[in-house]
Amino acid sequence: MAGSTWGTIFRIMTWGESHGRGVGVTVDGCPAGLELCEDDIQSYLDRRKPGQSKFTTARQEGDRVEILSGVFDGRTTGTPLALMIRNQDQRSGDYSNIMDVYRPGHADYCFDEKYGVRDYRGGGRASGRETIGRVAAGAVAVRLLARYGIRVTAYTKSIGEYEIDPSRFDIRARDENRLYMPDAAAAAAAGEWLTGLMKERDSAGGVVECVITGVPAGVGEPVFDKLDACLAKAVMSIGAVKGFEIGDGFAAARSRGSVNNDAFDLNQDGGIRKKSNHAGGILGGISDGSDIILRAAFKPTPSIAMPQQTVNNKHERVPVEIHGRHDPVVVPRAVVVVEAMAALTVLDLYLLSRHSRLS
Amino acid sequence: MAGSTWGTIFRIMTWGESHGRGVGVTVDGCPAGLELCEDDIQSYLDRRKPGQSKFTTARQEGDRVEILSGVFDGRTTGTPLALMIRNQDQRSGDYSNIMDVYRPGHADYCFDEKYGVRDYRGGGRASGRETIGRVAAGAVAVRLLARYGIRVTAYTKSIGEYEIDPSRFDIRARDENRLYMPDAAAAAAAGEWLTGLMKERDSAGGVVECVITGVPAGVGEPVFDKLDACLAKAVMSIGAVKGFEIGDGFAAARSRGSVNNDAFDLNQDGGIRKKSNHAGGILGGISDGSDIILRAAFKPTPSIAMPQQTVNNKHERVPVEIHGRHDPVVVPRAVVVVEAMAALTVLDLYLLSRHSRLS
Amino acid sequence: MAGSTWGTIFRIMTWGESHGRGVGVTVDGCPAGLELCEDDIQSYLDRRKPGQSKFTTARQEGDRVEILSGVFDGRTTGTPLALMIRNQDQRSGDYSNIMDVYRPGHADYCFDEKYGVRDYRGGGRASGRETIGRVAAGAVAVRLLARYGIRVTAYTKSIGEYEIDPSRFDIRARDENRLYMPDAAAAAAAGEWLTGLMKERDSAGGVVECVITGVPAGVGEPVFDKLDACLAKAVMSIGAVKGFEIGDGFAAARSRGSVNNDAFDLNQDGGIRKKSNHAGGILGGISDGSDIILRAAFKPTPSIAMPQQTVNNKHERVPVEIHGRHDPVVVPRAVVVVEAMAALTVLDLYLLSRHSRLS
Amino acid sequence: MAGSTWGTIFRIMTWGESHGRGVGVTVDGCPAGLELCEDDIQSYLDRRKPGQSKFTTARQEGDRVEILSGVFDGRTTGTPLALMIRNQDQRSGDYSNIMDVYRPGHADYCFDEKYGVRDYRGGGRASGRETIGRVAAGAVAVRLLARYGIRVTAYTKSIGEYEIDPSRFDIRARDENRLYMPDAAAAAAAGEWLTGLMKERDSAGGVVECVITGVPAGVGEPVFDKLDACLAKAVMSIGAVKGFEIGDGFAAARSRGSVNNDAFDLNQDGGIRKKSNHAGGILGGISDGSDIILRAAFKPTPSIAMPQQTVNNKHERVPVEIHGRHDPVVVPRAVVVVEAMAALTVLDLYLLSRHSRLS
Repeated sequence: MAGSTWGTIFRIMTWGESHGRGVGVTVDGCPAGLELCEDDIQSYLDRRKPGQSKFTTARQEGDRVEILSGVFDGRTTGTPLALMIRNQDQRSGDYSNIMDVYRPGHADYCFDEKYGVRDYRGGGRASGRETIGRVAAGAVAVRLLARYGIRVTAYTKSIGEYEIDPSRFDIRARDENRLYMPDAAAAAAAGEWLTGLMKERDSAGGVVECVITGVPAGVGEPVFDKLDACLAKAVMSIGAVKGFEIGDGFAAARSRGSVNNDAFDLNQDGGIRKKSNHAGGILGGISDGSDIILRAAFKPTPSIAMPQQTVNNKHERVPVEIHGRHDPVVVPRAVVVVEAMAALTVLDLYLLSRHSRLS
Repeated sequence: MAGSTWGTIFRIMTWGESHGRGVGVTVDGCPAGLELCEDDIQSYLDRRKPGQSKFTTARQEGDRVEILSGVFDGRTTGTPLALMIRNQDQRSGDYSNIMDVYRPGHADYCFDEKYGVRDYRGGGRASGRETIGRVAAGAVAVRLLARYGIRVTAYTKSIGEYEIDPSRFDIRARDENRLYMPDAAAAAAAGEWLTGLMKERDSAGGVVECVITGVPAGVGEPVFDKLDACLAKAVMSIGAVKGFEIGDGFAAARSRGSVNNDAFDLNQDGGIRKKSNHAGGILGGISDGSDIILRAAFKPTPSIAMPQQTVNNKHERVPVEIHGRHDPVVVPRAVVVVEAMAALTVLDLYLLSRHSRLS
Repeated sequence: MAGSTWGTIFRIMTWGESHGRGVGVTVDGCPAGLELCEDDIQSYLDRRKPGQSKFTTARQEGDRVEILSGVFDGRTTGTPLALMIRNQDQRSGDYSNIMDVYRPGHADYCFDEKYGVRDYRGGGRASGRETIGRVAAGAVAVRLLARYGIRVTAYTKSIGEYEIDPSRFDIRARDENRLYMPDAAAAAAAGEWLTGLMKERDSAGGVVECVITGVPAGVGEPVFDKLDACLAKAVMSIGAVKGFEIGDGFAAARSRGSVNNDAFDLNQDGGIRKKSNHAGGILGGISDGSDIILRAAFKPTPSIAMPQQTVNNKHERVPVEIHGRHDPVVVPRAVVVVEAMAALTVLDLYLLSRHSRLS
Repeated sequence: MAGSTWGTIFRIMTWGESHGRGVGVTVDGCPAGLELCEDDIQSYLDRRKPGQSKFTTARQEGDRVEILSGVFDGRTTGTPLALMIRNQDQRSGDYSNIMDVYRPGHADYCFDEKYGVRDYRGGGRASGRETIGRVAAGAVAVRLLARYGIRVTAYTKSIGEYEIDPSRFDIRARDENRLYMPDAAAAAAAGEWLTGLMKERDSAGGVVECVITGVPAGVGEPVFDKLDACLAKAVMSIGAVKGFEIGDGFAAARSRGSVNNDAFDLNQDGGIRKKSNHAGGILGGISDGSDIILRAAFKPTPSIAMPQQTVNNKHERVPVEIHGRHDPVVVPRAVVVVEAMAALTVLDLYLLSRHSRLS
């Protein structure tokens, strides 16, 4: 309950700090019989790996996953999957000047107040490296969801004021630019802006959008474990996320019922479909068979190179300059983390929904 | 796990439909020794009661709470508090014309797909009456939080495009208008617009804002049970909520690190404080001692009196007109529900945070 | 987590004290579509009802169950079933002399130490009436298990030294004597002994045995949630139980591997079966397809009419005489409670086991 | 929920098979500030290590624990402790002859039925090596309990018919014989008997007793999470355990209320104590301040060298001879596992009990 567990039927527990021996995750509840090897997981980890471009930290880590248990003869056995990724490139020296200083926008102060002690070498559990366990487990969830026809795709919707133009949306473009924006022109403009921001030693935020297709109607539990509520927690639990929307989100609050209601209609084959999808695929907390669409707002990277004023743990006002390697925007590397959290959440509720009626 | 449970140390389970015998909640984990009587809970329930004004449904229900267990000689005993509110004014006849019809914007279709059966008389568990259990339990949580110096206050921030003006913010005004807007002028303008909307047989949405004061630094768990993540789930689990923000929320995604970072500074007495609060009181998922500020976007009431096109459970296209009693906007009555969910969430994590360090 | 919740997929929460307004249980996770009415539950409650014979307390309570939610048109809807039983015959006056006294063998002292307050009128949550919620929920579980071909049958195996003779075992005899012993001769002898004990104002204990048939191989989770471990918790959570066995139990500790191992063999139709069942139907925590056999040891009723020495909450030595209505042995009325807890446990793990492999 | 998680506030998740890369456990919820190094854990692991005497398997494993996360500068940080023990001596070849055979008394058949696949090389998750994670986590729990004055001590009470004589009980003798019996004479007799049994290629069972001192009154939750119920699950979840008792256990079922009730009395300093302890330190599921005493019955080791008849996964009758390295009795190595599970359970409920009343 100290917060490192996610899920009930498909449950994971993560561990590890940025400057310890490694990070990892144990998956308990993966059904037996799923084909799985390390490469299946590695391809997801590679998408969040640092050092991919000038917009991500130069820290070079192999981030190679090891499957320590739960797979035999290339298939899962139903017993826990222990996944470990060793930390390699730690350069602890980089952080010595911030050992007793509370960096603005970081959780240093909160950790000290909560625990009375803190691994000051790089954020500890509040480091971005914490997300490795999520992505590794998420990769397994994605494979399982594929068996049920469910697919999760996230991308960068905006960086600062630079947003993808729906008319130019092209998912193939996503993997062709290092900002993971499915609009080459928007990506180019955002990239240029980011370059300028780096020169100013400042940072940017942005929005990740995620589309989940193939979820049948009926997934999600009424009341507290609504599908959108669970997705909100999943996504808000990613560091730096400050806002969450499903479907039209905050825009719906300014709409009217006559506009916002999605009319039900029939397919050519007589199946039920909605004419629009303001709801983002969820009504009353339960999937309605349409695409599920969500968005997460990420704040600007708090680690900026420009000098800042702050205080230290002796309650003295001190200046701080954050050196080391930091992304000017976390959004591109967070895309796969959003996918992972969405996959873990949908999978768990999908499995649970099998118990909704007698069978 | 079917979704009617909230919390771990202070845990609640709700039950009941809009047209059954009643609704209720059991609270397990309320410490012994808290003074509690039915009136303490009733005052919260009265704030969500229908029939308060022309903007809320005319449905007249006493909504009187009964404490069935867990209180002895005016104090809690540490054993479960069972709270029940009988349904009184049900008028089932009102709903007979929508028995097999899937109302747009409602969960009727999703329930049928999930369960294969549905109590068609008024939304069942997707009815707004489901929130009574939340508010009753929330009232107990609020009393407990008060013992620890924590206070939760929500209000209507906007209805449609009508938003409170921060320069006119006056929390006393909140309870003086039936829209629960702490800005009398904005409330008057919004009311006028709502009146027009009702004539058009349409509906509106809006935003609720909630401020939580007195939370010490250190509440919230790293990784999955971050305080903001848990608040997001809590608030998104309320019917009709489509978006959630903490602090600057989506605006942070368009900001810069140099602007969005809240500088740490010292109080006159040498204590640590932040010069600004873009973060909304939470860093790395853990409270930082500042006020916690969150917002929830509510969609327009889906029940509108104007004729709509839809389908029924025989897969036929049919028109539907929704009669009965429905609020043109759910926001005013949802204010106390947001308070309740925020209180339940902060309380549980506050209690848990006592275990963060040796003592 | 304060202990009133059982189960994960099929989850219940109970509430209520012996001298409050009633007792009850909410069942969250019952699949939709199960035929259910109050009589289905009542027949189980009647089996634990007091006043059935001279060996049970003369307290007369109707113990009529009301289904407050979750059933529509005679079938479950998938939403929570709230079940309530009002307390009727309370005679609080009976208990005034023990208000500040710690009765030997009772939890009075522990409750005072734990909570600092206690409803002294009859045991509160430590009263036998607490089991009503278990039995009501168990009755629903039993109906669901029947759909899957699983059946739970408990009976009195022994009272004091009087034990059923396996050669005379006749399950029909169980319901023909008020001790629920499936051996009329043993029941007669035990009854005679009990009559004498009552004259001595003393009490007896005994053993309940429970057989669960029809559980397919594969139910139960390795490591912590073994089927036998969960059954042990379920049964040990019933007040007055001091011991638990599966299969040969403690006798196995004195056996040899060559004797205790159950040889696998083939049925006439080529299916796998065991030649013996020392294991009681569970190997490595997972059902093996044989009958599951468990036993629970109940201590003698602590409420005895003979004078006892004890202390009070002012730390004074005082004599105590317990008047009121108390069974000289709790075993007969506990039989249905054991069935209920076994049913709730097997059902939850049976549902979970559907996720063990890809499907 | 697939069974590898234990605890709520102090929660652990274990992983690993006997023939994978290793076994391990993650502890989430250990408070910050506890001094902890690998040696603290190693001394517990050494007590369950094989190869200690002629009565334990000759398998030689270092079983060296590595702390991968959660400790900084010699103290816990409040973040998850990941503990890993690599498997070293695997000799997979030993098991090839039993690849498709269902060994009597083992879970092979159940695993195949549950998962459709099985790591046949040594029991997988049903192997005794699974307990390493329990012991490693238990060692941390024991250190924490020591801070609160709580101590857990288990020992071998009996092997086969050879039982310690209470009059000769000497806890120091426990660690002087490899059967962990606190009675040198009983240990010598049991050892002689075991030697004969090994010659006959047979095996024995036995009973472990565990005493927990220093638990204040008030630990344990009423109803389902009674302290004894949780201890029962904890101990029954250890492989090979078939019975559990608290206090007088099954003997209580044959006693009388007048004998079995523990009279309350006063200490010299006016504190409340019990004159006897038939209850084993728990009344109504809540600790009463006396020593907590529990017993676990272990069945004889199912792996015996003598030829047995069984069937294989092709549903053919086949003979089986189990070679390899197997303890003739698991009890001595299980002593520390019982301590670990008792410690994990008491700790979690002790922490939870801080919430029982207002403070």
